[in-house]
Amino acid sequence: MSCPSRKDLQNYFKKRLPPIKWLPKYSCQHLQGDIIAGLTVALTVIPQGLAYGQIAHLPAQYGLYSAFLCCFVYCLLGTAKDVTLGPTAIMSMLVAHYSENFGNNIALYAVALSFYCGIVQFILGILNLGIIVEFVSSSVLSAFTGAAAITIAGGQLKHLLGLKNTTRSGDLLDQLITVFQNISTINKYDIILSVICIITLIFLKQLRSINWTSPPTSILQTVCRKIVWLTGTSSNGIVVLSSAGIAASLLAKNIDVFSMTKGVAAGLPPFRPPHLSATNTTSWDVLNNIGTGLIMIPLIGIVELMAIGKVLARKNDYTIDCSQELIAIGVANVLGSFVSAYPVTGSFSRSVVQSNSGAKTTSAGIFTGTVVIICLASLMDFVRFIPNPALASVIFCAVLPMFDPSALVKYWKLSKLDGFIWFLTFTLSIPLGIEVGLAVGMGFSLCFFVLYPSARPRIIYEFQDNCTIMKIYEKLTFAGSDYLIEAIRKQLKRTSIILDLTSMNSLDPSIALVLSQISREAGNYGFIMIASKEVEIFLKKVDIKCGSSINDSLREIRCD
Amino acid sequence: MSCPSRKDLQNYFKKRLPPIKWLPKYSCQHLQGDIIAGLTVALTVIPQGLAYGQIAHLPAQYGLYSAFLCCFVYCLLGTAKDVTLGPTAIMSMLVAHYSENFGNNIALYAVALSFYCGIVQFILGILNLGIIVEFVSSSVLSAFTGAAAITIAGGQLKHLLGLKNTTRSGDLLDQLITVFQNISTINKYDIILSVICIITLIFLKQLRSINWTSPPTSILQTVCRKIVWLTGTSSNGIVVLSSAGIAASLLAKNIDVFSMTKGVAAGLPPFRPPHLSATNTTSWDVLNNIGTGLIMIPLIGIVELMAIGKVLARKNDYTIDCSQELIAIGVANVLGSFVSAYPVTGSFSRSVVQSNSGAKTTSAGIFTGTVVIICLASLMDFVRFIPNPALASVIFCAVLPMFDPSALVKYWKLSKLDGFIWFLTFTLSIPLGIEVGLAVGMGFSLCFFVLYPSARPRIIYEFQDNCTIMKIYEKLTFAGSDYLIEAIRKQLKRTSIILDLTSMNSLDPSIALVLSQISREAGNYGFIMIASKEVEIFLKKVDIKCGSSINDSLREIRCD
Repeated sequence: MSCPSRKDLQNYFKKRLPPIKWLPKYSCQHLQGDIIAGLTVALTVIPQGLAYGQIAHLPAQYGLYSAFLCCFVYCLLGTAKDVTLGPTAIMSMLVAHYSENFGNNIALYAVALSFYCGIVQFILGILNLGIIVEFVSSSVLSAFTGAAAITIAGGQLKHLLGLKNTTRSGDLLDQLITVFQNISTINKYDIILSVICIITLIFLKQLRSINWTSPPTSILQTVCRKIVWLTGTSSNGIVVLSSAGIAASLLAKNIDVFSMTKGVAAGLPPFRPPHLSATNTTSWDVLNNIGTGLIMIPLIGIVELMAIGKVLARKNDYTIDCSQELIAIGVANVLGSFVSAYPVTGSFSRSVVQSNSGAKTTSAGIFTGTVVIICLASLMDFVRFIPNPALASVIFCAVLPMFDPSALVKYWKLSKLDGFIWFLTFTLSIPLGIEVGLAVGMGFSLCFFVLYPSARPRIIYEFQDNCTIMKIYEKLTFAGSDYLIEAIRKQLKRTSIILDLTSMNSLDPSIALVLSQISREAGNYGFIMIASKEVEIFLKKVDIKCGSSINDSLREIRCD
Repeated sequence: MSCPSRKDLQNYFKKRLPPIKWLPKYSCQHLQGDIIAGLTVALTVIPQGLAYGQIAHLPAQYGLYSAFLCCFVYCLLGTAKDVTLGPTAIMSMLVAHYSENFGNNIALYAVALSFYCGIVQFILGILNLGIIVEFVSSSVLSAFTGAAAITIAGGQLKHLLGLKNTTRSGDLLDQLITVFQNISTINKYDIILSVICIITLIFLKQLRSINWTSPPTSILQTVCRKIVWLTGTSSNGIVVLSSAGIAASLLAKNIDVFSMTKGVAAGLPPFRPPHLSATNTTSWDVLNNIGTGLIMIPLIGIVELMAIGKVLARKNDYTIDCSQELIAIGVANVLGSFVSAYPVTGSFSRSVVQSNSGAKTTSAGIFTGTVVIICLASLMDFVRFIPNPALASVIFCAVLPMFDPSALVKYWKLSKLDGFIWFLTFTLSIPLGIEVGLAVGMGFSLCFFVLYPSARPRIIYEFQDNCTIMKIYEKLTFAGSDYLIEAIRKQLKRTSIILDLTSMNSLDPSIALVLSQISREAGNYGFIMIASKEVEIFLKKVDIKCGSSINDSLREIRCD
């Protein structure tokens, strides 16, 4: 191997450290855009982070622990200017699901999860294996997202109703059973607050998507419109802040009516290597307990990140580098575990906010991360005044739009099989957990849409002068070799065969072997193959001489 | 649904009970052929069965317990006249491997294994899922067979050398370590007997494949040739019988020099439902311990059965019904578990014997089964006189020809990737067990030969008048949708596109969805699709109107 040239090295570093590309061209305008975007995202991530910590069954501050370091890492390693990493509803739910068995050590476990997932994602990135996300079909993804949404929303019911004594539990069915068992312990003040919060959120979120019919006529109008948009965008913050204000002033008068956020610790998390074992629990136990989570969590993380990344890259006309994205999320998760973060990924809602607030480069993340750190360092004492129902409302309104049952109708109309796979993925997720639904859905769609067709390649028959021309367009793989050989043998009993492989530029070695066997059996004039130049050269290796064209071959067979 | 007609029912029963087809035409000649074939196979299966019991780490008689009921079942349900079911070296080894953890209950466990495997195979048969064997590529199968052969041969070394105190163990590496640790306990008489047995076996087996240059001139010559062939075919029996004779006569003179077959019980096995649990072991424990064996053993059984079945069916010009074969082997294994049998499958060597002895129908199995029963009922007292080295020699000579390292060279020359997969499957099998090698090999070949290409469909570009014609021959699946959409988007930035899908007769729904999205984005004249009638109808569902031909579309784009 020759030594890499200076240019190769430059390109390599440009690929692995994207700021090298954009930093030299960085201007004041860029900075302005990034600051505004970064701050706006921070306004969104702080209330969301507190709420998502709750989904993960961790103290609220863990959501914020997970929200800052990843922003810095992504600034250095990410390739999509609009994407922001951080805690998401689905990842938080998966963390809760996979740490169920860990009793008092959930926090330790969630952090270890981040460490291991990061390693898996990093390795996948280095090995260029981002391709695996392409094997999640759109119907499976849609059903999975929907199932995740209603599972998460169902899990918030107990907080919305202010139920007491509800132990945490995994899938939707368990959640609903818990709610009904404890329905007598509802807190009417919590319910009232929930209803108010949800209505306010729905209203405020509408502001974000107002389509002004005319362009702004004055600066004042421009500013007003920006304020309206910002109000919509920071709706979560507004609702959480106001509820906390109300709760705090009531508490000042010794009126304690709401269920409050518990166990919140102030201050920044310590910076230390993650504990991968605990008293009575070895590292091996922890890894063993993660089990399939070691595949599912990194995979789902990558799927989420790629889904939002590709949508925004398309919209704003740039491309993302899948492998580099995997490396970025991998490093973010591994380093995150040093500051007690749980697994993060690209957030759909916040990335859209970042994009709409005019982010110019990934450096927007620096400002988001800094604000989160300031909040952790100084504002956490305030968090204990946030009522639970307010956070639950934030989650409820964030995830419910992700559930879209009309997708089932869409897929069913297009293909019964795709509809069935949507239905299967969705229904299995409800009692068995979303990772089971996802795995089964992926398995089914792979089997029916990719594997089965590969074992049954389409052969087009044409008959001419006592000779059958068999034409194959599709790629032939070893899985189809039995089928092909039987089809050829059946036909050989009746007529001579010309096998036309001209539309292929490569051939599977197993197929070449069976063809050479048939060719020997059938003799010189019974079986003639026509192939492209590349395939012809390959077939020579197994002693098959190809005919030059269909017409020549027909003549040869006739003369015989 | 309408009521099935009389003819449908008839066809169904003909399919599910093949004797309905051949019994009415059954003649004396058929009977003669089947009797000879059945008896010849019995001569082979009795010594093999005793030896294979040893591979399975079970008392020798279990090999025979597994050898009779399956013959009767296959006579009723099988579709390949040349195939004979029974214990095989590979299945026996797998039984030993999967029952390792069961200490004193191995026999119970092996029988439970047969029961569960039968159920899995039966279900696969009913669901028409015989197709899974087509996903084992020929290179993986070759490497797997080779690895199994040397693992089994390695496991016999301790018996060939007469080592003492060797505990049983799984993979080849363990086996060899055990041999070296106990090398000081060799028994020179055992070694002498082994060498004699192996040389005799090699010589006798040659007789089977003598090619007589001239046709026989007299009846005497014909008879002589038959006797020579029969001697070759029953070489195992001859070697085992002679060794037993020698050992018995030495023992009569109180000379006890050979390691003898131990723990042999006389008589037929009891007929009773299999015990699926034992003291201290629940049915769930048993099932849990089988684990991946519940997939691997049925799968390998099916692969072996299909491999030999297809070869012989091709040779003798008939077809086999894969699903019915699965049902047959499934029922054979489930019922087998009622007579203490362990999992069986189609035996390669004995099926060839059955074919060469002139079997006419599957009823040959009746005679094989009957002879095995007679042997079990009356001759088992004799088995205790069979020296261990004689059985080990039988196994050694049976499996070693299955190992063919030249296959690696063949595959490597044809395709580096296929060669690598052979190498990987083989090398992983040595330290980790053949089922790990098989699983990894299958996984790799599926990923590289089927899944990866499906995510990277080949697009053929043609440029005409500022317009790109993109032609796709290969089947498009959802896995390729990201790749396709990116390729089209990239090209759309430069020119108009005509997408030619005329060689397809169906389209994946996910692909249709992304195409409709692109079509909307690109507008009327930027992106035109040409498709076959079927695909055109399908595309209408997602609001795509196809162009009529490439030339028309080119004109449309030019006029625009």
